[in-house]
Amino acid sequence: MTIENVSVNKSFAGWQKQYSHFAKTVNCNMRFAIYLPPQASSGQKVPVLYWLSGLTCTDENFMQKSAAQRIAAELGMAIVAPDTSPRGEGVADDESYDLGQGAGFYVNANQSPWDRHYHMYDYVVHELPELIESMFPVSDKRAIAGHSMGGHGALTIGMLNPERYCSMSAFSPISNPMTCPWGQKAFTAYLGKDKATWRNHDASELMREAKQFVPAKVDQGAADNFLLEQLKPDALLAAANVSGYPLEYQLHDGYDHSYYFISSFIEQHLCFHATHLNG
Amino acid sequence: MTIENVSVNKSFAGWQKQYSHFAKTVNCNMRFAIYLPPQASSGQKVPVLYWLSGLTCTDENFMQKSAAQRIAAELGMAIVAPDTSPRGEGVADDESYDLGQGAGFYVNANQSPWDRHYHMYDYVVHELPELIESMFPVSDKRAIAGHSMGGHGALTIGMLNPERYCSMSAFSPISNPMTCPWGQKAFTAYLGKDKATWRNHDASELMREAKQFVPAKVDQGAADNFLLEQLKPDALLAAANVSGYPLEYQLHDGYDHSYYFISSFIEQHLCFHATHLNG
Repeated sequence: MTIENVSVNKSFAGWQKQYSHFAKTVNCNMRFAIYLPPQASSGQKVPVLYWLSGLTCTDENFMQKSAAQRIAAELGMAIVAPDTSPRGEGVADDESYDLGQGAGFYVNANQSPWDRHYHMYDYVVHELPELIESMFPVSDKRAIAGHSMGGHGALTIGMLNPERYCSMSAFSPISNPMTCPWGQKAFTAYLGKDKATWRNHDASELMREAKQFVPAKVDQGAADNFLLEQLKPDALLAAANVSGYPLEYQLHDGYDHSYYFISSFIEQHLCFHATHLNG
Repeated sequence: MTIENVSVNKSFAGWQKQYSHFAKTVNCNMRFAIYLPPQASSGQKVPVLYWLSGLTCTDENFMQKSAAQRIAAELGMAIVAPDTSPRGEGVADDESYDLGQGAGFYVNANQSPWDRHYHMYDYVVHELPELIESMFPVSDKRAIAGHSMGGHGALTIGMLNPERYCSMSAFSPISNPMTCPWGQKAFTAYLGKDKATWRNHDASELMREAKQFVPAKVDQGAADNFLLEQLKPDALLAAANVSGYPLEYQLHDGYDHSYYFISSFIEQHLCFHATHLNG
């Protein structure tokens, strides 16, 4: 496996880096960002939080806007942020912001033309951690978190792989994609019209049926423009209630869907993950 | 005076906002960003840190990438970030990134075609604080800080107006613009060829001659690509040595010119200013 270093910036005595590599699962070059805390420079194997971003984002948004590095440096935690979809000239795309490049939805597409590259589920769950754990001074302790579309990704990937993740968290996740416009459009395109296959990628459906529990934390802004139509946290709460899922949920007065919300509460998320990664 | 609200985001229990207004000094509409800490919502008049950004930036870069809001919320400090130049269709511009829109250099231009709008010095020193102090719950205690071109702006404006600012600080400032390509190009365009007028906007020249001292803090990354050719902190240190200027200067191993450097040390800057604003 070869990876190419794209950028390096010192941050809170650790290193903020970007890499590009050819990814078999999505059959194209992918870029990711990694924050390596100072502990990783002194030979310690640090745990990794995978961060999945929302619609239109790349590997950069979280690293530039979340203010997570200060806390990751204190906690001795690496953070890895993949891109939100396969990209490039040969990769299928759509004019709208909520389908195609920048909008992979963290599933394995089985519908043409998306099935040639859009296997973000396999990339995030398998190929990327394999690469990270072979190339960087990290342990095999993993947590997963995300925002909006990435919150959907974090919760579904966490619940589908309870043996692989110590904890999962989300800001403003698309909690019940089967019933919202963003999810219905993406799932129809990527997975086809058979809704039976959609249930496997719907956090509320998975949480209702869950038997194995991954410690979970979700935060939602009450002034989020997308709350009622797209995000539907009530469906997730109802599902957790049915299965008895240990979900820490908070609604925050006045906060919206932006990174200003994420940066205000990212410390709580990293501390939550640190407890479980080190537990 | 009328100002138009452009955006509002809750951040660390305070409010991140953008406004647009017609500015007489620069004869066009200007946008600025303001962070109001939670203390400002409970009737307290808070002091203000003015942040001047570097080349190509707008009012947004610092607010999105510096991670300053957490600390400002703790300290009860407002932060105001103006744009880096006048902008708009009728405003003179240049193809290069280091002249024209996005590159006002915080001076009052007296050369055509720049003299019609490029009076950023008057805007930052007078018009903007007057507006801020009339429209927001802030005191008349001011500090000023900036990065690169904005570090040049903060230091020169601070030293030219010691009665108006409690403290000043800079990350990676253009410390001796009379002797570096960025400064020589901008000063020639905005101020003409007579170097006597340049001295009034050169931090090292002002610091060497200073009689009244504004507490000053400067941080510089040792891995900054622009260090030797453009920034020249040694000239500033030599000048401080001549006048006995109370300059806290630190060179930081491995850090570069990016916001990853700024966010790593912004807490120290805000605490420095809080000491003097509340002193």
